[in-house]
Amino acid sequence: LHSLHGSNGLILTLGDPNGLGPELACRLLPGMFLPVPLLLIGSERSLLHHCHALGIDRFWESIDQPHRFSTGSGIVLFTPPAIRDTALDPGEPTVEGGRCAGESLDAALDLLKSSSGRSLVTGPLNKAMLQEAGYPFPGHTEYLAERSGVGSRNVCMHLCGPKLRVSLATTHPPLREVPGMITLERLLLCMRLTCGFVRKLGLPGPVAVCGLNPHAGESGFIGSEEGEIIVPAVYEARSQGLDVEGPFPGDTVFYQAAQGRYSAVLAMYHDQGLAPLKLLHFGDAVNVTLGLPFVRTSVDHGTGYDLVGKGSATASSLKRALELALRLGGTGGRPNEPQDASTE
Amino acid sequence: LHSLHGSNGLILTLGDPNGLGPELACRLLPGMFLPVPLLLIGSERSLLHHCHALGIDRFWESIDQPHRFSTGSGIVLFTPPAIRDTALDPGEPTVEGGRCAGESLDAALDLLKSSSGRSLVTGPLNKAMLQEAGYPFPGHTEYLAERSGVGSRNVCMHLCGPKLRVSLATTHPPLREVPGMITLERLLLCMRLTCGFVRKLGLPGPVAVCGLNPHAGESGFIGSEEGEIIVPAVYEARSQGLDVEGPFPGDTVFYQAAQGRYSAVLAMYHDQGLAPLKLLHFGDAVNVTLGLPFVRTSVDHGTGYDLVGKGSATASSLKRALELALRLGGTGGRPNEPQDASTE
Repeated sequence: LHSLHGSNGLILTLGDPNGLGPELACRLLPGMFLPVPLLLIGSERSLLHHCHALGIDRFWESIDQPHRFSTGSGIVLFTPPAIRDTALDPGEPTVEGGRCAGESLDAALDLLKSSSGRSLVTGPLNKAMLQEAGYPFPGHTEYLAERSGVGSRNVCMHLCGPKLRVSLATTHPPLREVPGMITLERLLLCMRLTCGFVRKLGLPGPVAVCGLNPHAGESGFIGSEEGEIIVPAVYEARSQGLDVEGPFPGDTVFYQAAQGRYSAVLAMYHDQGLAPLKLLHFGDAVNVTLGLPFVRTSVDHGTGYDLVGKGSATASSLKRALELALRLGGTGGRPNEPQDASTE
Repeated sequence: LHSLHGSNGLILTLGDPNGLGPELACRLLPGMFLPVPLLLIGSERSLLHHCHALGIDRFWESIDQPHRFSTGSGIVLFTPPAIRDTALDPGEPTVEGGRCAGESLDAALDLLKSSSGRSLVTGPLNKAMLQEAGYPFPGHTEYLAERSGVGSRNVCMHLCGPKLRVSLATTHPPLREVPGMITLERLLLCMRLTCGFVRKLGLPGPVAVCGLNPHAGESGFIGSEEGEIIVPAVYEARSQGLDVEGPFPGDTVFYQAAQGRYSAVLAMYHDQGLAPLKLLHFGDAVNVTLGLPFVRTSVDHGTGYDLVGKGSATASSLKRALELALRLGGTGGRPNEPQDASTE
C-alpha cells in the first residue's frame, strides 16, 4: 500500500477531446482548491477551445517533461506529441478522439510506472472509438489493469457514493455468464480489496456480501451458488480477519447499507449493485478501481457528446472523483512547494 | 376487467395466525376508515389474543356465511370451521399456522370464485409451513394463480410504491435460469398487464422496459437477448398500442422512473427490479398480482415472527395494501348499504 500513501500529485486524463472531459475541466478547475499539483494529460486544443467558449483565461502551464511536473506549481498540462495536431470535432465521436484518449492514457501509465505516489483520475472516453483507434480493451478499467501488469482478474470495480458504496464481483459480462464467474477466489479478492478501501476511508461497519439468487437463495431453495460458493467465501474471508457479513438478499441489503449498517456492499453483478447505487447517487458517484498499484478514480458518466458546449452537464462527478483521489492518495504535498524527491 | 370495477367489498386473509398479520390488523383496523365492508378470514383466537394484549375491544362481528358478508356492515370475521380449534403459538412457525393460512386462502378463493367484484388483500404467511401443511405452492401468488384457474405463467408480480412501480418478468427462479425464461410471449403479457395497471391508476408516462444485460446489452456488444427478444417484444407491444419504451439499462432507468419519467418499470428479474424499489420504498410498497380475475394486493413483508407482540412492527404496508385494493376495486359501495345483488 506504499503508493496509496504518497502525495506526489494528481494526474487527470482529459479523455476524449470531443467529449465532456475538457469542458468540465475548464468549468471546474479554475475555481477548485487543490492541495497537490495537478497534471492534465490530453489535447491542449480542446482546453483552449472551451476556455474561449466559456470566456475564461488559460489556467495551466504547458510542459514537455511530465515526469517532472511535481516540482512545478498548480496545474500543468502535458500533451503527448502524437496528438498535438489532432483536429477537434467537439460533440462528435471520431477515431482521432479515441486515439487522443488512448495516447493520453498511455502517457499517464508511463508516468505512473516510473514514479510512485501519484494518483490517476480519468475523464470520459468512448470505448468504441478507443477500440477503433487500435486499443483492444473493453474499457478504461481493463486497459489500466492490463497495462499496469495487474490483470483484469485482479482488480475490482467500485462505485463510491455519499451514502452507498458498491463493489462488483463481475462487471460487464452477459447476465447468463455471471453465475459461472462467481468463484471463491474472485469473491475473496473483492472482499479483501473492498475491506481495504473502506478501512482507508475510515468507514465503520462491515462489508455486506450479496447473494446471487433471489432472497440470497432462500437457504438453498433457490439456486445452489450461495451454499456452494458465497457462504464458504464469506466464512473464509472472516477467518482471514476480514470484516464481512452475508450473503444477504440483494433486494434488501442496499436499504440497510444506505441506513449506515454496512460500510459497503459487494454485489455479484452489474445491475444488482448499480441499479440501487445510481438510483440514490445519479451523477454523484465516483468509479474507483481497486487493486491497481496506484489510486485511480473516474467520473461516473460517459463522453456525453450531445451535451458538449451546451453548458448543462454538471462537473460534480469530476469534482468528486478528484476529491476522492486526493483523499485516497494523501494530500501531504502543497502547491508551490518542492516535492520530496525520494518518492519519485 | 369487469371484476376490477366491482365494489362489493374487501377480503383480508390474516395469514399465519402466529405471524404479524393478526397483530397488525388489530392495530390498524379499529381506526381506519373503510368505505366498503371488510371481511376478515382467519383465526379468531389470534385476533382475540392481540386485542387482549393491546387492551382494545373486539372490532368485528363473527359470521358463519361469508358469501353474504357484503350485506352486513363494517368489519366481519369468518373463521373456517377446520381452524376454529387450532392452538395459537404466537411468534412461532408451526405447521398448524401454515394450515390456518392455507384454509383461510381456500375460503377466500371459494368466495372470490362465487362472487365477482370483491378484492383480496393477503396477510403474511410462511411458505415453508404452508408447504408442510400440504399446499404444494412456492407462495401466495402461485397458489392464487393456480387455484383461480389462471395459471402462474399468466400473472405478473408487481410492487407498487409511492414513487417507483416495478413489474417482474421473472420472479423467483435461480439467476442462471432467468435468461432462458425471457420470452416474447412472457414480455408481451407483462407489458400488457403493467400498462393496464398504470392506466387504471391514472398514472402518466410510458412503461419502461429494462434490458437483461449490463447497459441493456450495449447495442449487442453484451449478450444477445435484447436484440433477439426484448427489442422485438417492445416493438410488437407498441404496434399493439401499448405505451412502452425500451429496453433501457437497468442501472439508470429506475432513477429516471423515480423522477416521474415513466409510470412503471418492467424489470427482467427479481433483484434488478426490487433492489432499487426496496431501497426507495422499504416497508412502503404493496405487492400486487396482475392478471388474476380479481384485485389482489399483499403486504410487502413476511410473518416477522421475531417482532410479534413487540409493538415495533409497522402496519403501514398493510394500510397501503388495503388502500390500493380499494382504489383498484372501486369504492362505490358504502358500509351499511345493501350491495347490488346483480354483481354477486
